[in-house]
Amino acid sequence: MKALVTGAAGFIGSSLVDRLLAEGYTVAGVDNFSTGRREFLKGALENPKFRLHERDLFDEKSLRDVLTSDFTHVFHLAANADVRDGLKHPRKDLEQNTIVTWNVLEAMRHAGVKNIGFSSTGSVYGEAPKIPTPEDCPFPVQTSLYGASKLAGEGLISAYAEGYGFQARIFRFVSILGERYTHGHVFDFFQQLRKDSSTLRVLGNGKQRKSYLYIQDCIDAILATTRHTTGKPVEIYNLGTDEYVEVNESIDVICDELKVKPTLEYSGGDRGWVGDNPFIFLDCTKLRAIGWKPKKTIREAVRLTVQYLEGKS
Amino acid sequence: MKALVTGAAGFIGSSLVDRLLAEGYTVAGVDNFSTGRREFLKGALENPKFRLHERDLFDEKSLRDVLTSDFTHVFHLAANADVRDGLKHPRKDLEQNTIVTWNVLEAMRHAGVKNIGFSSTGSVYGEAPKIPTPEDCPFPVQTSLYGASKLAGEGLISAYAEGYGFQARIFRFVSILGERYTHGHVFDFFQQLRKDSSTLRVLGNGKQRKSYLYIQDCIDAILATTRHTTGKPVEIYNLGTDEYVEVNESIDVICDELKVKPTLEYSGGDRGWVGDNPFIFLDCTKLRAIGWKPKKTIREAVRLTVQYLEGKS
Repeated sequence: MKALVTGAAGFIGSSLVDRLLAEGYTVAGVDNFSTGRREFLKGALENPKFRLHERDLFDEKSLRDVLTSDFTHVFHLAANADVRDGLKHPRKDLEQNTIVTWNVLEAMRHAGVKNIGFSSTGSVYGEAPKIPTPEDCPFPVQTSLYGASKLAGEGLISAYAEGYGFQARIFRFVSILGERYTHGHVFDFFQQLRKDSSTLRVLGNGKQRKSYLYIQDCIDAILATTRHTTGKPVEIYNLGTDEYVEVNESIDVICDELKVKPTLEYSGGDRGWVGDNPFIFLDCTKLRAIGWKPKKTIREAVRLTVQYLEGKS
Repeated sequence: MKALVTGAAGFIGSSLVDRLLAEGYTVAGVDNFSTGRREFLKGALENPKFRLHERDLFDEKSLRDVLTSDFTHVFHLAANADVRDGLKHPRKDLEQNTIVTWNVLEAMRHAGVKNIGFSSTGSVYGEAPKIPTPEDCPFPVQTSLYGASKLAGEGLISAYAEGYGFQARIFRFVSILGERYTHGHVFDFFQQLRKDSSTLRVLGNGKQRKSYLYIQDCIDAILATTRHTTGKPVEIYNLGTDEYVEVNESIDVICDELKVKPTLEYSGGDRGWVGDNPFIFLDCTKLRAIGWKPKKTIREAVRLTVQYLEGKS
């Protein structure tokens, strides 16, 4: 495998780069460092099999000299991953998640590289009519610009698979936790408690049920599905565990790890923000069927994340 | 109702403009005349309640001085409707159907106009696992760039409905036939037979089962759903009849109307081209439930279309 990873300096991207290098593959990483962090690639940059390209994928030609025909796989992980603030800058998701995906597909088509892995999201299900939600669940409507932009990316990829003979694996992630985690619920709570451990403000009523997956389990799943061939041009996989937690339960773990007992202040309501989904729980039977299973529970993943944020790992 | 119609000089757009004017509404039409035809608006332009704006909606600012806050409805029908040749120019669907839809939504948000009707397509179902296909059928994968780009438009619209309080009606059309019809199966067959009535080349085996709807029935449906309020921010409707025809049956009607008996030459296979869907038949129960029903059969629609193309109507 010779792989190109977009969003290579991101949380998931850099973790995938490290794993691919550890398994002996040649890897090119692309990042525009809008949110990616150079320090995440410190180890990779010491490996002669890794090369970093600082490019902005919104420039249609950005991959022209990077993605050559000798690459076998592209893992397209670059994205605007800010779900909550989509409504503040509604063009951002369109540009970074939909148009950029098209740019990557076109670069692949021109180079003759036809194997793509894509980081989609469980958010495409909106508020799913069926929980746990299987991959073939109907989507009633999109409830966030982020979900809409990722669904658009999925559509483009499957149309390229059908029309140009691409092989695609689409990953609908739950929220990922672990080392290099940089934003989301757990990060927000950790930051608040570091500033003031006496009070924790919680968006919603704390009863939102959320799903998380540990980063190394996520990387295991990406590689397992990449190695598993089915003969179908497009395979869509939910990536999550067989459990979920209430926001309040995550808070318990965080507070236990930090040894703090804050007063909890809830903003109220069953949604933390417009588009927040009160219950995310994906059916991962399809992924389990190829032999993958997660090694960490959600509570362990939360704890490891807090330890990482504390600088202990 | 004060309505803005995009794609106003198109087949469906101009038919909607005429109907809205006939019902006494004030209408602004927007078209870039890439495929729209000025003659379709000849009648409308004589009506003082109609105003035409020649604009390219791919320019993000194109509607800034056109869409003012006194408009109550936008019917966004402008699109690249060329399903078959998507793979020849893969950016066209992204630009014309996805990015342009975002531009229209943004113009609406800035003007405070929140009621949108959108021409989507039955193609979003790809090769549907359930036939007749209801609105909540899962989409396995997108099989055309056209379908993918329209699905992306649907996602954007529902995210705007959720996030900014828009009201949306999304129409998943089958193929529309009738006066002002300009491209598609029937047009291709008509053109071939006009040049040489002895032979007709047919893509695929002629057994593809397709659905059509007569243009005035389509306009009736758009208006019926616009007047029907359900309290939900997004309503998706399949628009079609309760029947389908084989390509060979359409050919029979066309030949009968033209009084020709060509030799049929099939290219073979159950698909006419990459992404062609061998069986399109939508479940229109939801639309029927609000009191709408089509006045023309598919065979009548094909016959009226041929008469129009012959210059008889």
